[in-house]
Formats: sequence, structure tokens, C-alpha cells
Amino acid sequence: MIDVVIAGIGQTEVGEHWAIGLRDLAFAAIQDAIKDSGGLKPQSLFVGNMLAPNLSNQAHLGALLADFAGLKGIEAVTVEAAGASGGAALRQGYLAVKSGLVDVALVVGVEKFTDKIGADVEDALSTTSDSDFEAVQGMTPTAQAALLMKRYMYEHQVPADGFAGFALTAHANGVGNPCAMFRKAIKLETYAKADMVSDPLNMFDIAPNADGAAALVLTRRELLPANWHASRPLVQISGSATSSDTLALHDRKDMLYFDASQISAAKAIKQAGIPLDAINLFEYHDAFSIYAAMQLEAVGFATKGQGWKLAADGEISLKGRIPCATMGGLKARGFAGGATGVYQAVEAATQLRGQAGTNQVTGAKTALIQSLGGPASTAVSHILQTL
Amino acid sequence: MIDVVIAGIGQTEVGEHWAIGLRDLAFAAIQDAIKDSGGLKPQSLFVGNMLAPNLSNQAHLGALLADFAGLKGIEAVTVEAAGASGGAALRQGYLAVKSGLVDVALVVGVEKFTDKIGADVEDALSTTSDSDFEAVQGMTPTAQAALLMKRYMYEHQVPADGFAGFALTAHANGVGNPCAMFRKAIKLETYAKADMVSDPLNMFDIAPNADGAAALVLTRRELLPANWHASRPLVQISGSATSSDTLALHDRKDMLYFDASQISAAKAIKQAGIPLDAINLFEYHDAFSIYAAMQLEAVGFATKGQGWKLAADGEISLKGRIPCATMGGLKARGFAGGATGVYQAVEAATQLRGQAGTNQVTGAKTALIQSLGGPASTAVSHILQTL
Repeated sequence: MIDVVIAGIGQTEVGEHWAIGLRDLAFAAIQDAIKDSGGLKPQSLFVGNMLAPNLSNQAHLGALLADFAGLKGIEAVTVEAAGASGGAALRQGYLAVKSGLVDVALVVGVEKFTDKIGADVEDALSTTSDSDFEAVQGMTPTAQAALLMKRYMYEHQVPADGFAGFALTAHANGVGNPCAMFRKAIKLETYAKADMVSDPLNMFDIAPNADGAAALVLTRRELLPANWHASRPLVQISGSATSSDTLALHDRKDMLYFDASQISAAKAIKQAGIPLDAINLFEYHDAFSIYAAMQLEAVGFATKGQGWKLAADGEISLKGRIPCATMGGLKARGFAGGATGVYQAVEAATQLRGQAGTNQVTGAKTALIQSLGGPASTAVSHILQTL
Repeated sequence: MIDVVIAGIGQTEVGEHWAIGLRDLAFAAIQDAIKDSGGLKPQSLFVGNMLAPNLSNQAHLGALLADFAGLKGIEAVTVEAAGASGGAALRQGYLAVKSGLVDVALVVGVEKFTDKIGADVEDALSTTSDSDFEAVQGMTPTAQAALLMKRYMYEHQVPADGFAGFALTAHANGVGNPCAMFRKAIKLETYAKADMVSDPLNMFDIAPNADGAAALVLTRRELLPANWHASRPLVQISGSATSSDTLALHDRKDMLYFDASQISAAKAIKQAGIPLDAINLFEYHDAFSIYAAMQLEAVGFATKGQGWKLAADGEISLKGRIPCATMGGLKARGFAGGATGVYQAVEAATQLRGQAGTNQVTGAKTALIQSLGGPASTAVSHILQTL
């Protein structure tokens, strides 16, 4: 039985990195993660990336980044599952170490949105939805999320500012995260007065597209260097699962329930052998606030139609019943595409190590992270625990 | 110790499938592979694809193809490593089964080149080379291979028609493969008179871009259905390895040697615990004939600079010392992008099962397959053996 542990973590600031390229961003995160691991030497690199072939005219990132990071010759591959690419890369790294054939796996998520602008970015994002049946009709992921939110608000009688709690929590937590894109708290009035993007989604219901990279070094517990930070809690991956669903919403039996989110979380939780209430924090995928609400329901923290109330009632804040987006989430840390799932792992590990500073969730020992591609067309869940 | 076996194989004809889309192609191959496996139920899907986000405006193929194949809910992810995407997807499927966490993995390689034409295809292909340092200068993969071949011919004093043997062998073998794009043998004169594409690469030194899909069902040996074809040799994956190199040729110490091809083949062969001469057939990645020559050298079938002579001397034919491209290779079967590495596995398994018809390599028990991304910027090697 192999225990897969997170030996090292690294991340860049999330934001608009106009001056540096994809490979530089990835390298910065990789360098930090390897240093943090005590200098472990990776044999395999799993790159989580969503849109570089479109946004940066660059596919084949595995070999490119391995070489640029001074790791030429190692196994290297790109893993793509839309917005869940980072979570999927973590999953592949986990499977590689778990197989016993790879001693040290490096997982890096990287995205560079600012290589293109405006409509070109929306075009690229639309390749992640069903091209033949949705994108071709002009439906973008944002428009799709708006339709989903509208239906949810109608069915569950949610007031106009019912989703405000997600943005308020995210921005409050962004303040304490030095890598967050937005480090400024917002008020309810700010949310209520925000410009509408795609009714009923306003500016604060949508995570900002941004550049960033995050990295993890995974290994077997017994391979940790002798000098590995003895005083620091060691974080183990005790559950890992992926589930899929239709890309197109019209193909679903119940549009208002994230089946893949439910299935993958349940599998990861079962593998970890813990009850739901053992989870001390939840990093959800709040690309749109409606996704966060529906994830809370699918995982089981709220009943159907009541996810938004958890946010409205302050239960997802750092001192609430189930702290979420503890370092700002996608909304305030920023949505760095395929890096997102890796950021979630880095942030959860930071919490479990007790290194989250003013954002520390007291006594955090178990975290659930869930990375989504589209409206939970892909959902990748991991349980991280202190050993 | 988990034995990973190939329980099922499936493939479509390679060619110009104008009338059907990416998902239909993939579905056809998946359906065949699952049927061939005796109805095993996959838990995980690994999609090898190279260019769909560019060529078909469609990313997020994992969830899309899982749903379309009636497998909604299973784990599903896309694996990309340029031309080696298919080999890399096979590698991920292998690792997943080897981890003990996945009982049945489905690997599908799929590519649809005909969704775009002409310059758009070259543009898309160029995203697999170094965008900032090569593609931006106008260097396409074809031009890069031409430069490599020119230097090789100069250094090793190769005559003008020195590479003809690769195309002649491929086309001779294509005749007996009902899924091959070209099923017509060619003569030396045909090669010698062929139009030049990018000097010294003529039309017959370049594999044709084509549409196609191939699929594999992988499982642990003990999970095979009781009714699994008892009379058919069972094919095991006994070696698996990936290595990487720079994307840009100018970054290499020796431009005329494929380091990653050497490293990944040596690792896979070592894992299988066999001598080189136990290998009965070699499926190389002859996207360009120069690649095939350099792979023969890197793997160790020829000394440096002598790979082309193996082809010229008939040693890679079906009855030669080391049969290569036994079902037509990329040149005659067709280059279906990210499906290619999976086609190699399907074809090698067909040989090892003794089902290759007129193309059967007598007594084939062990095969090496190697999938390349760019000029061996990625090289994925697998050893397949009968059990």
C-alpha cells in the first residue's frame, strides 16, 4: 500500500503577467515546489493546461516545460479536461506514484490568458463546451452559466442578491492571500450595484480569467528526504476520483444537479474512509457562483436548492460550518484556467500545514478540493489530510 | 504485481472521413474494442488527441467521448504530447491499471484533420513545435524534418534515394491492411520521381495527415471475462516508458541523435527484462522517413548514421531482420495525429495474436512500439508480449 504525499508546493501570483510567457510562469512555480520538497528529483511531469494551443499557439507543453525547467529527458505529458485540467493533472500524478513505477511526480498547472484578448479568449473558452451543439449556436460558457443560474433562481426562489455571499466570502479571503489577484474585500452594496454581464450573472458572479502557475511534488512517504521539514505536518492524498457528465446541458436528466460533482466527491471521500463532517474546508470551483452553490449541494453540505443559503448565512466563511474558497477561490485568487486545480491543492496543503496566516482555518486536518471542467462535465475530487 | 493486459482492440479505417465527426470516429473504435474485450466495463477513459481544440474547435474530449460512447459518469481525460499523444494516452491507461485503483481502462486515440484544410492544418501542427523560437520564424514541422534530413544525408553521405526503403516497405505492407489509407505498393521509380515537398523530403518521405480512431481496453489479467477468447494469445504490456527532449532542434547537443527515443526504449526494454534481439517487430513513428531512420539507430537496431541502410537492404520488411511498419506504418496506414500511438498498439497486438493475415510476422511474440511527438521531443515506448 503506497501512501502518496505532497512533498512540495509552489505558486506564482495570479494576475495579468503581460511581461512573461507561459514557460517562465510554469518554471517559477516548479522551482518553488522542488525547493520546498527538499530537492526531490522528479521522474515524471504532468502539466495541467486548458487553452495554450489556442491562446499561446503552443501545444506539446510537457516536453517544453520539462526542458525549460532543467528536467530534459524525464517523462512529460499534458493533461486536459477544460477547467478541471489542473485537477486531472494532479490525478495523473497521483496514479503514477500509486502505480509504484514513478517515485517522484511533478504536477504543474499553467495558463496564460493574456496572450490573447477579448473575443479570442471567449472563442477559446468555447472549445471546452459542446462545439457541434452549443458553441456553434453562439453559446459561451458564461452564457451557459447564466441560463443555469436563471433556472436555479426560478426553481428555488432565490432573491436577486442571493448569490452575493460567494463573492463576499471570496474577496474577504483574497485579502490574506499574497498570490491572489484581488486582495480587497467587497460589500453587499458593491455586489448589488455591479454591472450585469449575462443576466442574472453580474461581474461578481464570474471569476476573472488570469495568468498563473502552481506546482506540486508528489512522492511516496518513505522517499521523503531525511531533512524534510520535520516540524511541518505532512499532507497525504487519501482520496482521488474523477467523474464525467455531458458537455451540453440539454442532454441532462436534471439540469440543476451536478451528478459528476456528487459521484467524484463521494468516491474520494469513500476512499479516504471519512465521514462528510470530518472535512474541515472545501475548495470548490467557483468559476461562476452558481457552480459553487451546486457543488455544495452535490457534495452534500446542503440539500438541493439550498447551497446559496450556506453562503448567504456565512457558513462558508473561515469560521463557518464549512469554510470554502479559503484563499480567495477562483473569484478573488483568480481563474488561471488549467492551473486552477493545482492552486486548490497548493492552498489546501498550505491550510493543512498551518501556514495560511490570517486565513488559517483553525485545526484544519482534512480538506476536499474539487476541480470542474464546464458545468461539472468533468469533476475531479481529492481528499487531502495531515498524516 | 499487477499484469496489465490488452483485453480488446478496435480501429476505424484511416482516411478522409468528410461525412462524420470526431465523436463518431472515436465511438466506432471504442465500440469495437469493448466488444472485442468480451464486454468489459471501463471505469476510466484516456483520450489521445493532438489538435482537436484547433482543428475541430473542440477541447474537453474526455467527458464528450465518454458521454457519446454511453459511458457517462466514468473518469475521462485527454492526454496530449503532440504526435505522441496516442502513446501517452496508452501510458496513462497502463499506469492507471498498474496503480490497482482502476480495474478497466479504455484508451482511445482520435484525430480529425479534415475539419480544416491547407494552411490552417500546418498552423495547427506548428503549435506542437517551439512557438516562441521556431514556429514564430515560420518553421513548420515539415520544414524542420527537411532540415534534419538534409544534415543527416550530408553527415552520413546518403544517396538521393537512400530513404526510399521506408516508403517502399510501408506501402508494401499497407496492401494487406484493410484499415490502411493507402493499399497500393509503390516502386523505386515512383519514389525517385515523386514531387519534392521540402527538399530533400519528397511526397513519399512524409506520412499523410488523415482522420481515424483506434481504441484499447486494458485490464488486470485476472479480471478478464471467463468467456474471453480462449484460443487467442493474450497480449501483455511488459514495458512502458516516456522520455522527453527539447522541442527546438538548435537546443540539442547532437541534432542527429534521438536521445528521448533511446532513453524511453531502453527503459521499456529493461522493464520487460528482454534482450534487444527478442523483439520480433518494431512499430516506429515514420511521420517523416528521417524519423524512422533515427529511431532505428536510437533503439539500437542500427549504429549511428546507418538506420537508412536497414531499409535500403530490406531488413525492415516482413521477413527481414526486424520487421517495421508491419501494417503500413504512418506512411501507408496514414498519420491520424493523436490516434497514431494507439494504432501502433492495435496493430502490434494484431500481430502478436496471429491475426495479421498476409502481413503476419511469423512467430511474433514480442513487439516494440514507439510513438513520437515532434523530432522525438517526446518518445513513448511500450513492449507488448504474448503471455
